[in-house]
Amino acid sequence: MPNISQRGLNMPASPIRKLVPLANKAKAKGLKVYHLNIGQPDLPTPEVAMEAMRAVDRKVLEYSPSEGNLGFREKLVKYYAKFNIHVGVEDIIITTGGSEAVFFSFMACLDPGDEIIVPEPAYANYMAFAISAGAVIKTIPSTIDEGFALPSVERFEELITPKTKAVLICNPNNPTGYLYTQKEMNQLRDIVKKYDLFLFSDEVYREFCYTGAPYISAFHLKGIENNVVLVDSVSKRYSECGIRIGALITKNLQVKENVMKWCQARLSPPLIGQIIAEASLDTPEDYMLEVYNEYVERRKFLIDGLNRIPGCYSPIPMGAFYTVAKLPIDNADKFCAWCLSEFEYEGQTIMMAPASGFYTTPGLGKNEVRIAYVLKKEELGKALTVLEKALEKYPGRTL
Amino acid sequence: MPNISQRGLNMPASPIRKLVPLANKAKAKGLKVYHLNIGQPDLPTPEVAMEAMRAVDRKVLEYSPSEGNLGFREKLVKYYAKFNIHVGVEDIIITTGGSEAVFFSFMACLDPGDEIIVPEPAYANYMAFAISAGAVIKTIPSTIDEGFALPSVERFEELITPKTKAVLICNPNNPTGYLYTQKEMNQLRDIVKKYDLFLFSDEVYREFCYTGAPYISAFHLKGIENNVVLVDSVSKRYSECGIRIGALITKNLQVKENVMKWCQARLSPPLIGQIIAEASLDTPEDYMLEVYNEYVERRKFLIDGLNRIPGCYSPIPMGAFYTVAKLPIDNADKFCAWCLSEFEYEGQTIMMAPASGFYTTPGLGKNEVRIAYVLKKEELGKALTVLEKALEKYPGRTL
Repeated sequence: MPNISQRGLNMPASPIRKLVPLANKAKAKGLKVYHLNIGQPDLPTPEVAMEAMRAVDRKVLEYSPSEGNLGFREKLVKYYAKFNIHVGVEDIIITTGGSEAVFFSFMACLDPGDEIIVPEPAYANYMAFAISAGAVIKTIPSTIDEGFALPSVERFEELITPKTKAVLICNPNNPTGYLYTQKEMNQLRDIVKKYDLFLFSDEVYREFCYTGAPYISAFHLKGIENNVVLVDSVSKRYSECGIRIGALITKNLQVKENVMKWCQARLSPPLIGQIIAEASLDTPEDYMLEVYNEYVERRKFLIDGLNRIPGCYSPIPMGAFYTVAKLPIDNADKFCAWCLSEFEYEGQTIMMAPASGFYTTPGLGKNEVRIAYVLKKEELGKALTVLEKALEKYPGRTL
Repeated sequence: MPNISQRGLNMPASPIRKLVPLANKAKAKGLKVYHLNIGQPDLPTPEVAMEAMRAVDRKVLEYSPSEGNLGFREKLVKYYAKFNIHVGVEDIIITTGGSEAVFFSFMACLDPGDEIIVPEPAYANYMAFAISAGAVIKTIPSTIDEGFALPSVERFEELITPKTKAVLICNPNNPTGYLYTQKEMNQLRDIVKKYDLFLFSDEVYREFCYTGAPYISAFHLKGIENNVVLVDSVSKRYSECGIRIGALITKNLQVKENVMKWCQARLSPPLIGQIIAEASLDTPEDYMLEVYNEYVERRKFLIDGLNRIPGCYSPIPMGAFYTVAKLPIDNADKFCAWCLSEFEYEGQTIMMAPASGFYTTPGLGKNEVRIAYVLKKEELGKALTVLEKALEKYPGRTL
């Protein structure tokens, strides 16, 4: 039998994935499992999107252009303009989910061995795409005690080497829900400019900002227009993660040209997904507002509830639909596994994402979990009760 | 402005892509352009597939499992069994097109610097995926004069180094239409076994074999079950290239485990595409037969027509819907560009794929083109006339 690749063996398996068999067992035992672990909104996909899919009237489901359908990209130009992001249709390349946009950004901009600086905790799959591209992620810890604010310029500069080619941010942030301030974005702009770096900015949660504080896109920053590669996705805002449609947006001609080579290699993004996504851009304002208000309420409900549980602490997330909370426990990996395998409260239990998967610095996030508020308030309430009861019983409780 | 990646700059742009602007100009001038260059079938997507899409009755278009929907994979087990390919549902991983299956095969099995032996001419995008994975493709020329038969064992052995980790074939072949014989497949089996290599086998055209000669899958070969990674796609057989659904099939547990890590990183394959592809497996036999008969007729018509043009030669392709033909010209890149930019016959011209894009050995395929028979016979006839007239006028004609 041939030897398997070391690269594959070295790729870390996500801590959530390890919990999946435990969750399945819990369900098989008849337990109700509240999924606080996932980023799949429970809200309905807009009707206008579903209708567009049903109305597809083509004889052949052909390849679409490698850069995506022109009509869809034209509508995206108008969509971004609403957020004061002024890009041309030629700056937008449609990808197979935001995931592919991240991967193609790395492939197009970086060479093997190049380094990307990422504030952590960070979306775990960035690491996988970096490994795929042969790039190296260097993380700077942000801390729950500072509410996950952007680390200081000095911390960035400590990590910069001749191999440093990019900074990667997610704003609003998955997993922390943090929204970078104008001052923080200016700090990033200055670093990027001073060291001539790419700024990869994952802004898929822009629609979900709750505090009145402005959403500052990387494209709002002056003087670094050629450094910015924006990653986007329709998955979260229209609750259509399954269609796998995202976008990579850049004004940098060389980057575009390189990205297109990878786009052409994989031929085209999903056709039906593009039709659905294009129609989604016409989602009525009242749907968007309803979704927004729903998340606002859930967020308040969840965070208040978490902070009421003795020994728990969650900063108030300003965007997205996640929070990273600190629990009075020895080890979140163990606690999350224990909840699924050894605990139940009135026939229920909870599945959460241990925060260890979002840090690369060993030991960080050990007593933290990511909680997504993609459940209805009533269910969130029950899940909070289960969490409180679990913490009371958990043998590894620290407080 | 940050420096762009060398990897991207080094990635070869496809020779077909360079022709696209010329084709657009020709169309803008009002010329009718016959597209002999593409692998997009003109035949209708099966009605049963379109109906399944229109009947989707879900509230949320959610992520599907990273390995693909279970129901679809179960139906694929039965589909493969019809071809005497006996695999379990756990051996099948759904991918975003056959393209992703090729890429994940490389990522999961190979480390940077590892070598893959590929008979050429070969599908140009294998090269792109190898570059993505940091792997190195070593090609062995097959020749039009030998009808593109598999090169001898000796030619393979000359290329084998300690870095050689895999052999990659496409069977039936794109671009040549060649179908490997039992003897050739046995030869591959022996090499793979002797040197402990992976055998990546792209078999997306299995439905299109025209000579009565049997289709031999890599999975039919005894004793190398753990070496085989099969690449599949529904694109060609159901004329649904746009839905981006393929599969990676392997019995090798380690490979599966590694592949799943990449699958999880990109979250899931397209949901609607899977629904369409699953329904396509129920396509009535008479549709499949009609499509098959249509290709049989076109193939005869095209090959006869080509061989009747003075100085042209095409071997008889045994499968797929392409042929590589030799033309009496100095340079196919120039000729194909000339047809689009400087030639017309009664308001018509042709677009073909220069074969240079399918070879990596410099100079090979210089007077060859790939022609796809994805047009109706009537259009193929007109295209053949245009080709004949073009060859008469072309200044770089050699015979």
